[in-house]
Amino acid sequence: MAKSIEVIQDNLSFVLNKPHDVSFVQQPKPELESPHDVIVAINYTGICGSDVHYWHNGAIGNFILKEPMVLGHESAGTIVSIGSGVKTLQVGDRVAIEPGTPCRRCEECRAGFYNLCLDMKFAATPPYGGTLTGFYAAPEDFCYKLPPCVTQQEGALIEPLAVAVHIIKQARLKPGQSVVVMGAGPIGLLCCAVAKAFGASKIVSVDIQSSRTEFAIQFSATHTFIPDRVSAEENAARIIEQAVLGNGADVVIDASGAEPSIQTSLHIVRRGGVYVQGGMGKPDINFPILALCIKEVTVRGSFRYKGGDYKLAVELVSTGKVDVKKLITNIVSFHEAEQAFKDVKNGKGIKYLIAGPNEKF
Amino acid sequence: MAKSIEVIQDNLSFVLNKPHDVSFVQQPKPELESPHDVIVAINYTGICGSDVHYWHNGAIGNFILKEPMVLGHESAGTIVSIGSGVKTLQVGDRVAIEPGTPCRRCEECRAGFYNLCLDMKFAATPPYGGTLTGFYAAPEDFCYKLPPCVTQQEGALIEPLAVAVHIIKQARLKPGQSVVVMGAGPIGLLCCAVAKAFGASKIVSVDIQSSRTEFAIQFSATHTFIPDRVSAEENAARIIEQAVLGNGADVVIDASGAEPSIQTSLHIVRRGGVYVQGGMGKPDINFPILALCIKEVTVRGSFRYKGGDYKLAVELVSTGKVDVKKLITNIVSFHEAEQAFKDVKNGKGIKYLIAGPNEKF
Amino acid sequence: MAKSIEVIQDNLSFVLNKPHDVSFVQQPKPELESPHDVIVAINYTGICGSDVHYWHNGAIGNFILKEPMVLGHESAGTIVSIGSGVKTLQVGDRVAIEPGTPCRRCEECRAGFYNLCLDMKFAATPPYGGTLTGFYAAPEDFCYKLPPCVTQQEGALIEPLAVAVHIIKQARLKPGQSVVVMGAGPIGLLCCAVAKAFGASKIVSVDIQSSRTEFAIQFSATHTFIPDRVSAEENAARIIEQAVLGNGADVVIDASGAEPSIQTSLHIVRRGGVYVQGGMGKPDINFPILALCIKEVTVRGSFRYKGGDYKLAVELVSTGKVDVKKLITNIVSFHEAEQAFKDVKNGKGIKYLIAGPNEKF
Amino acid sequence: MAKSIEVIQDNLSFVLNKPHDVSFVQQPKPELESPHDVIVAINYTGICGSDVHYWHNGAIGNFILKEPMVLGHESAGTIVSIGSGVKTLQVGDRVAIEPGTPCRRCEECRAGFYNLCLDMKFAATPPYGGTLTGFYAAPEDFCYKLPPCVTQQEGALIEPLAVAVHIIKQARLKPGQSVVVMGAGPIGLLCCAVAKAFGASKIVSVDIQSSRTEFAIQFSATHTFIPDRVSAEENAARIIEQAVLGNGADVVIDASGAEPSIQTSLHIVRRGGVYVQGGMGKPDINFPILALCIKEVTVRGSFRYKGGDYKLAVELVSTGKVDVKKLITNIVSFHEAEQAFKDVKNGKGIKYLIAGPNEKF
Repeated sequence: MAKSIEVIQDNLSFVLNKPHDVSFVQQPKPELESPHDVIVAINYTGICGSDVHYWHNGAIGNFILKEPMVLGHESAGTIVSIGSGVKTLQVGDRVAIEPGTPCRRCEECRAGFYNLCLDMKFAATPPYGGTLTGFYAAPEDFCYKLPPCVTQQEGALIEPLAVAVHIIKQARLKPGQSVVVMGAGPIGLLCCAVAKAFGASKIVSVDIQSSRTEFAIQFSATHTFIPDRVSAEENAARIIEQAVLGNGADVVIDASGAEPSIQTSLHIVRRGGVYVQGGMGKPDINFPILALCIKEVTVRGSFRYKGGDYKLAVELVSTGKVDVKKLITNIVSFHEAEQAFKDVKNGKGIKYLIAGPNEKF
Repeated sequence: MAKSIEVIQDNLSFVLNKPHDVSFVQQPKPELESPHDVIVAINYTGICGSDVHYWHNGAIGNFILKEPMVLGHESAGTIVSIGSGVKTLQVGDRVAIEPGTPCRRCEECRAGFYNLCLDMKFAATPPYGGTLTGFYAAPEDFCYKLPPCVTQQEGALIEPLAVAVHIIKQARLKPGQSVVVMGAGPIGLLCCAVAKAFGASKIVSVDIQSSRTEFAIQFSATHTFIPDRVSAEENAARIIEQAVLGNGADVVIDASGAEPSIQTSLHIVRRGGVYVQGGMGKPDINFPILALCIKEVTVRGSFRYKGGDYKLAVELVSTGKVDVKKLITNIVSFHEAEQAFKDVKNGKGIKYLIAGPNEKF
Repeated sequence: MAKSIEVIQDNLSFVLNKPHDVSFVQQPKPELESPHDVIVAINYTGICGSDVHYWHNGAIGNFILKEPMVLGHESAGTIVSIGSGVKTLQVGDRVAIEPGTPCRRCEECRAGFYNLCLDMKFAATPPYGGTLTGFYAAPEDFCYKLPPCVTQQEGALIEPLAVAVHIIKQARLKPGQSVVVMGAGPIGLLCCAVAKAFGASKIVSVDIQSSRTEFAIQFSATHTFIPDRVSAEENAARIIEQAVLGNGADVVIDASGAEPSIQTSLHIVRRGGVYVQGGMGKPDINFPILALCIKEVTVRGSFRYKGGDYKLAVELVSTGKVDVKKLITNIVSFHEAEQAFKDVKNGKGIKYLIAGPNEKF
Repeated sequence: MAKSIEVIQDNLSFVLNKPHDVSFVQQPKPELESPHDVIVAINYTGICGSDVHYWHNGAIGNFILKEPMVLGHESAGTIVSIGSGVKTLQVGDRVAIEPGTPCRRCEECRAGFYNLCLDMKFAATPPYGGTLTGFYAAPEDFCYKLPPCVTQQEGALIEPLAVAVHIIKQARLKPGQSVVVMGAGPIGLLCCAVAKAFGASKIVSVDIQSSRTEFAIQFSATHTFIPDRVSAEENAARIIEQAVLGNGADVVIDASGAEPSIQTSLHIVRRGGVYVQGGMGKPDINFPILALCIKEVTVRGSFRYKGGDYKLAVELVSTGKVDVKKLITNIVSFHEAEQAFKDVKNGKGIKYLIAGPNEKF
């Protein structure tokens, strides 16, 4: 349970001290460090699996919590202050925040792959603080104005939607293609929705929980499949048969990180098809490398998002092509944050939002 | 040992009856089945690892020897007959033979990916006979005229060179990039040479045998590495340090099919880099999937060759950019074929050529 | 006026003898020349601008009418006979016909660019006869089965839709991008519809006739523009301003072939954007080459269609994403063909269909 | 003639006041404005056609000289001061300077196309001063360390070589392809050399001056052609015949900006080939648009350079693949700058270098 709840002032923050040890701490309000920065009052923040992972384990891969860190990175807010060089945003603008600032100077940044920048400062990734706080400073070009038709609550869903947009772009998905998405958590569901917006003809959602696949079919999938306790090859054959995928799916996306899903994926994808690894799980798994080779499958990893992904995510919501509202299971007040993390850890609901500390809710 | 050696007539063929059971059989001379076909008198044929694999095991994956089959598919020959529709070739032309004929009608063929055609008729792949024979029929457009400066013996090396060309194309290797090639057998060596011709700045040849890496450095590599008995991560770190690859190699190619090589490869490649699976080994291996994901590595399988690969291979030889002669260890007469297979199986030399049955040798 | 109308038998054909000189001629019914061919009874054929151009001028570029030629190439029909090697089609299947058969053997064909095959046999392109006839022979893989929900009349529109699909593919149009289409004839309108199906955010239809832009906005455009009598730069500036295209359109397509449209296009497209030349007009025009250079515009020509275009066109109709029915202005009987050509030449309607000679209509 | 030559101190600069009116002015030495900046003492600067154009005309397109401006942008120098955040460079390092600093924040910059940045600050492009001065400030990541084997004089040639690298990259030139380069000035010659380094099989240099084509064949071309006074189609046919280009060249590059060259280019390129507009000349020209359309030519503009181009240019020089020294006709002292501009304007030599004002020369 959270150690202390101070009097809520300007910049109360939800801080992870060590696994399962959180505090509500009043932090100094951020200041404009660059003329290109803005200060955003946080309205809503979604809880991501990685937040829960840090809360539960204190680390993800090489990123290890060493000092207390503010959690949260899926946020929308309202601009309260702008730097002298800011041209496209005004105080009062409602924005979705892209929560990682790259160095802008390394080879990756200069080539357009800033998501691979080694000096990336990413919210709620040690040692950088997150957005479960009152006010957050961000560069102008990492804040995306929300059109009037998009609410702040929907705005908090732009981040996972941008993850899904990036995955589908990594798949080079083209209109008329078939796609199989392994895993029907928030990212898997959003991948289905983005695939639909990209013109996919068949969208097969695969998950071991029927409640999730049932949601998927209502949300955006055209077919669903619950894996049987058979081999990866056999599950692949059944998916191909049931969804009438012919020689296999044009695109397969793993949004689960689970070893059996990944194995099955490589047997679903057609010769010359594309497989994208979106989900993160065990670092090493048993993998059907020969199938990849003889079918000349293209495999791409997908990591966060880069130029254009956020912009497209906002557009998919504003045009009604992806109805992110449906994913919001619960919205809780800021001081209920810890319980929300416990609920998400226990698999309750799809997406929890936490209101900002200053949000009248 | 071969069961019988008949009197050598026109079309003596080297036939695999079952594992380790071969015969020299006089087969009917092929006829022109299409106006677009030509008949080629075989001059030289190289022994490929897959030939040896069929000879030793009787099967590769789903391709299983059920009836006696002529072996061999790496051949150059001389045109002895042309169909009425043939426009670009004449009797007497010396050619390298691309030994697989696709259906030309399926989606893959029509999209240019004929190497993925399910109805491919590939030489010495059950049930289709190979080129260790006197005369072989092939379509005009699968025979590549050799310029005067390229010998028939070099012509027999065009096939493995085309495999390497296809691998390097799958890597989208660009001038100035660094490449690491795992395995220094014929394909790995040729990958190094093609990488050089494509303008790679650093070419690291990795093999467990020092005799092979020594050959590689003379042939076309700029650096070599013999893996230590340490983890894949550690071997990767050592390769990166010794070859000064900075954040990792732009391109890594596996031409070994060996599990430790593949694991190491994924730790060598840089963020945003490319890995190509060229070697075939165990169908399933332990694979560092998380490294692929967070580094957004692109992985592609490479299978045989397709449009343009053979043409480029001929050009690389004729312009002197790849000196395939250096790979030829031994040239034996047709009736020594079985012993040559035994030698290759025992790891002798790099590339054995077998003269055609009618070749004055 | 047509010289003679013979008694309608099996294979009455609408033949162009020389400009403005047509005949209805009873031709020999085609036979299966290859085991992979099928015979199709033509149900409906649309009139294309190129048909009218041959009828009016007797030539298009280097293709010159030297002998009488059957017109027509936008057709759907019903299979009446199949070759022994046909696997995917049956007698009675209703199909859209892709009306050009490539050689399948040249470099272009083997690389997947069969639309660029120099030996292409294209319907109603001298010296090859077209589809305004009773029965037409075509290879199995160039006949696309229509799902039950797609009528034969819609099937006749698959050809121009495939042209538009190919144009949009040449533009590499991505979801969320803005596109301006110059010209609102059948191809321009279908480009707008395909762009919408590909997820374009803004689709600006430009034409000099308000009746056409009014149709466009109902059909699939989001904005329209009628050029003013001002410079290309000024018209471009007005389009950008009115459609709020910021620094310019991501993609501009010319479906008009008109010099002022092409000039304007290059001033509309943004830095780094794409322009596709779909329309054919004068061979040489005054062109803003410097704008192309300093904005690093990518320009691609678009010629007919290739692998996958027809398949996607059928899918766009069957899924309701493109409602081609709306383009059909008139359906006339076979013996009214000449009048239909006159009407189209005089700019009446959008798309005329001519029923097959044996069609109960 | 230059108005005044002051006593040479630290930061003497060669300033264009208005067309044909230059001064040598002592300017304030630049200071480190950002912790990521370095100060470079200029050693050598090449004269570019654009420098001469400003000197002669006072404007290039929309870039108009309104206030006195230092000329020059092709420079190599030696680092004399580094900011506190600089990690990869030290005082004393010899560097080639990429002379344009983009905003790093716009969509183009974030997508990797910083050469298209609207807020680019480019040396010697109004209103930004150039490098014909004593000391120049640049960001660390726009200075490229020269290996010991590359001289400062060669370093001044990195800029035009990077232009050529970018052009060849825009052409997506692949090993084994044929390329025709129109124009044999410095950029055209360097395009030939880069094409060779990229593995082009045939490199045809075309120019109206035989002295230039003679130089080209010694430098890196495999064939040359001097256009005849015939039509563009006829010149194209002759080039194709003489260089045995079959159905046309895979790639054609215009490095001349001349209307007849551009027209000829479109008739040289093969179906499905690539044409790159590298040269800048008249804003509008008569252009064979129909050939572009029916051959599905891809045309790309090429403007300056971006991520990776400079790095590759340095590597091509350091590995000896491009011998830029051969292009240096004359090296003059700083106070001879004006005469050098006059010589270049009069077509003398290939590339003039001007030593820095503090260079012992």
